[in-house]
Amino acid sequence: MDRLILHEDPLSGNCYKIRLTAALLGLPLERREYDIMKGETRTPDFLASVNSNGRIPVLQVGGRFLPESNAACFYLAEGSDLVPADRFARADMLRWMFFEQYNHEPNIATLRFWLCYIGEAKLSPQQKAQIPAKRIAGEDALAQMDRKLADRDWFVGDSCTLADISLYAYTHVAEAGGFRLEDYGKVCAWIERIAALPGYVPMD
Amino acid sequence: MDRLILHEDPLSGNCYKIRLTAALLGLPLERREYDIMKGETRTPDFLASVNSNGRIPVLQVGGRFLPESNAACFYLAEGSDLVPADRFARADMLRWMFFEQYNHEPNIATLRFWLCYIGEAKLSPQQKAQIPAKRIAGEDALAQMDRKLADRDWFVGDSCTLADISLYAYTHVAEAGGFRLEDYGKVCAWIERIAALPGYVPMD
Repeated sequence: MDRLILHEDPLSGNCYKIRLTAALLGLPLERREYDIMKGETRTPDFLASVNSNGRIPVLQVGGRFLPESNAACFYLAEGSDLVPADRFARADMLRWMFFEQYNHEPNIATLRFWLCYIGEAKLSPQQKAQIPAKRIAGEDALAQMDRKLADRDWFVGDSCTLADISLYAYTHVAEAGGFRLEDYGKVCAWIERIAALPGYVPMD
Repeated sequence: MDRLILHEDPLSGNCYKIRLTAALLGLPLERREYDIMKGETRTPDFLASVNSNGRIPVLQVGGRFLPESNAACFYLAEGSDLVPADRFARADMLRWMFFEQYNHEPNIATLRFWLCYIGEAKLSPQQKAQIPAKRIAGEDALAQMDRKLADRDWFVGDSCTLADISLYAYTHVAEAGGFRLEDYGKVCAWIERIAALPGYVPMD
């Protein structure tokens, strides 16, 4: 595999997904850190050389650049045990990764960012007005996860896949966004299972 | 392949993606239609047998059920020309599909639904307050697409992939949400290329 460089902010769960995937696979991953709170992904150099829309993470593979956290995880893990060999199971893994980006991250990660890193007092009126809806939608995402895990250890099949890694990233720090994980007992047990995986690395 | 049944609302671009993918591949796809405006995906029967969170589309594969439009397209198209054979290109295709669900659909599809199907007068104050931000984010998504297509015909590689199909679904009807497609000339030419593909079917 080509040289792998992760352009990231260590506080971002989307970036952490990629680091955790690489760690579980034993892949060497260099890190280039940027502070999004200081606008370091909006500099002319970053926009010209890494990602023209100023977003991270970006996985650099040799001289090529791959944005979108779940796409980067898929690139790293294809052919490994983290991606099911069965066709339906592989699509079902992607199903949970799309769920993560559509139903989970915009609510659970956004409330963490707004409340823990920006601070409620500094939010715009439009942002403040969205908090109740994001709270409800985030709770609904956690409840769906808890129901799925009611009679199983992992989201797809009988072992950890990218579906678990993708959902883990912002779930295990959801309390920073005001969510009570203790309300979701199956999710709490699943969080412990992931943290016990060989090769696991914590978020910074 | 097992018998394929699409549980859908014909007005939904997310459902149309799956029908277009199946049509381009020549796969037979049965259709079960539900009217989300009448709550037909919230009935006890639908929740118990198709999708417990009441969302469509759901692709039924024999006796198994696969939610999430882009995951369903991936299931249908794996191994075909609509999914690149190259590992990086395959991940890059997923990159645009995640972009579609995160940056494009929540803005462009939501404004179409709110303005064209619910009607601005019936929106809640919270929904109305989000219109300007969704307008800006939707324009940004279209601008990113237009820049990507500046010197190429397709989003990934030299032919149509699921990245194109996924982005096409809500882009080609974006004017129903108040977006001016004529402002995005490369996107307009790409829309015409997709409509000229052998096997193409229009949205209902």
